[in-house]
Amino acid sequence: MDIPSHIAPLDGEFVDGRHFFACRVYFEDTDFSGIVYHANYLRYMERARSDMLRQLNMNQHDAFESGEGVYAVADMAIKYVLPAKLDDDLVVISTVEKLRGASVIMDQVIYRGADKIASARVQAAFLSPEGRPRRQPKQWTKLFTKVMNDAHNA
Amino acid sequence: MDIPSHIAPLDGEFVDGRHFFACRVYFEDTDFSGIVYHANYLRYMERARSDMLRQLNMNQHDAFESGEGVYAVADMAIKYVLPAKLDDDLVVISTVEKLRGASVIMDQVIYRGADKIASARVQAAFLSPEGRPRRQPKQWTKLFTKVMNDAHNA
Amino acid sequence: MDIPSHIAPLDGEFVDGRHFFACRVYFEDTDFSGIVYHANYLRYMERARSDMLRQLNMNQHDAFESGEGVYAVADMAIKYVLPAKLDDDLVVISTVEKLRGASVIMDQVIYRGADKIASARVQAAFLSPEGRPRRQPKQWTKLFTKVMNDAHNA
Amino acid sequence: MDIPSHIAPLDGEFVDGRHFFACRVYFEDTDFSGIVYHANYLRYMERARSDMLRQLNMNQHDAFESGEGVYAVADMAIKYVLPAKLDDDLVVISTVEKLRGASVIMDQVIYRGADKIASARVQAAFLSPEGRPRRQPKQWTKLFTKVMNDAHNA
Repeated sequence: MDIPSHIAPLDGEFVDGRHFFACRVYFEDTDFSGIVYHANYLRYMERARSDMLRQLNMNQHDAFESGEGVYAVADMAIKYVLPAKLDDDLVVISTVEKLRGASVIMDQVIYRGADKIASARVQAAFLSPEGRPRRQPKQWTKLFTKVMNDAHNA
Repeated sequence: MDIPSHIAPLDGEFVDGRHFFACRVYFEDTDFSGIVYHANYLRYMERARSDMLRQLNMNQHDAFESGEGVYAVADMAIKYVLPAKLDDDLVVISTVEKLRGASVIMDQVIYRGADKIASARVQAAFLSPEGRPRRQPKQWTKLFTKVMNDAHNA
Repeated sequence: MDIPSHIAPLDGEFVDGRHFFACRVYFEDTDFSGIVYHANYLRYMERARSDMLRQLNMNQHDAFESGEGVYAVADMAIKYVLPAKLDDDLVVISTVEKLRGASVIMDQVIYRGADKIASARVQAAFLSPEGRPRRQPKQWTKLFTKVMNDAHNA
Repeated sequence: MDIPSHIAPLDGEFVDGRHFFACRVYFEDTDFSGIVYHANYLRYMERARSDMLRQLNMNQHDAFESGEGVYAVADMAIKYVLPAKLDDDLVVISTVEKLRGASVIMDQVIYRGADKIASARVQAAFLSPEGRPRRQPKQWTKLFTKVMNDAHNA
């Protein structure tokens, strides 16, 4: 089967240190009340964080397979402002807010056009294969610091 | 097909104003890092809240269908303490912490035996079919108040 | 918040009557065995079908809200050929195979590059709000017929 | 926190070689059309299969961790008969239909009371950690054979 080369999954991108990631609401995301099920916004946000790492050339899959470690959400606070609906086009904007030795704190906001749908503060901890907090790879800290500074100086 | 009558989904139950709800971790709940995907704890907690309403004879489905209204999570803060794994037996303990005119605040903690897995504070707002905050049914407020008092006096 | 206008969810597209839709594997899609959980391929396929309708200007949301009807999967046969993994770039290729009065049959194949990951035959029935089979909108039948012929003549 | 010992997740059970497993429909399972999202029936069926193995004392988690192998769905055909709705009490009845060296074929039917909701035929292949078909553990073959015979003789 010939697949045209321009048919590829959507990449997010950084603009002035902020990461922009688009997604659309499908049937699977909604519940019987007609709006997006509350836990599914966390999936959108995780996709955005994974894409952020991808855009920064941090390979989560390799880091996990090599036994270096993996990020896990340590805590999260989320505010649901407006409901999203089937077919909505959303954008997740993610900003690195704070960097610690073994964790990173991000602000993530979901918009539908000019409307704020939800906002969250997420702390992701870097964990060893045994599940213990571990210092993030030096190169990753450097990359996170760069985009954090870019965003604060923009 | 004859289905033995004792084969029925699990109901949670109230003990001294606290609601106990058990669930097990299946393949669908885990991710490639070997533990439960962080957004899926929110599904366990929502099942527990839905069961709590069910045990109190509040019929969410009817309230929605009749146009009275439906609960939606307004905000949530969650702390992930220990990872849950495939086949783990979990218990969600939910307590009504505060009652407002158009919303209810609950504390929810997930345990695996004596180990705390995650804890959350959740505010659920009662919404009209148009998505506006609406006063909760009087009878529901009464029932929530009762279990809230039971828990505080226990 | 200014969102650059080129940041938008990915649309699929038709090439010679076949619909191409790209998606990427995220944490949420995998399970503890390290590969995509089998039910999640159905989500990819449904996204592709929804996008196909969107590209053909069939508005599912409006059809449902106006009481005209909604598609529901009536039956499905799926073969899992190769496992997909975290970060994989996938393409779903969907072809209209047969058109009946109240249903449409599609073939859907998921590829990762040249590798076939999964293939399915899906029958979607058009249902009235009461859940009874209903003749599909005339305009939709016309549009499906066109792409079906395009694919068979390509 | 004292958790009453009778608060535990629901186990399914065998009756005459057929495995019965109950589950309830929650918000997470439904979509905006008001019924259970089609892919979610596969989750119910997988829970039932996992529980079946559990009741037979086959430990999937250990088999995977020890490098012995893991089951993966190889193919599946599913018929959606009636839609399930929020709060519905469902029962999944699973029967071992055929046993091959490296795979097992099961019939699974979902009921709501006397109503058939969906039925499926599922082939699960036993795979080595490298993803190649592998002969199932001898003891497991024996156990599957026993319940298969029990069902056919019932």
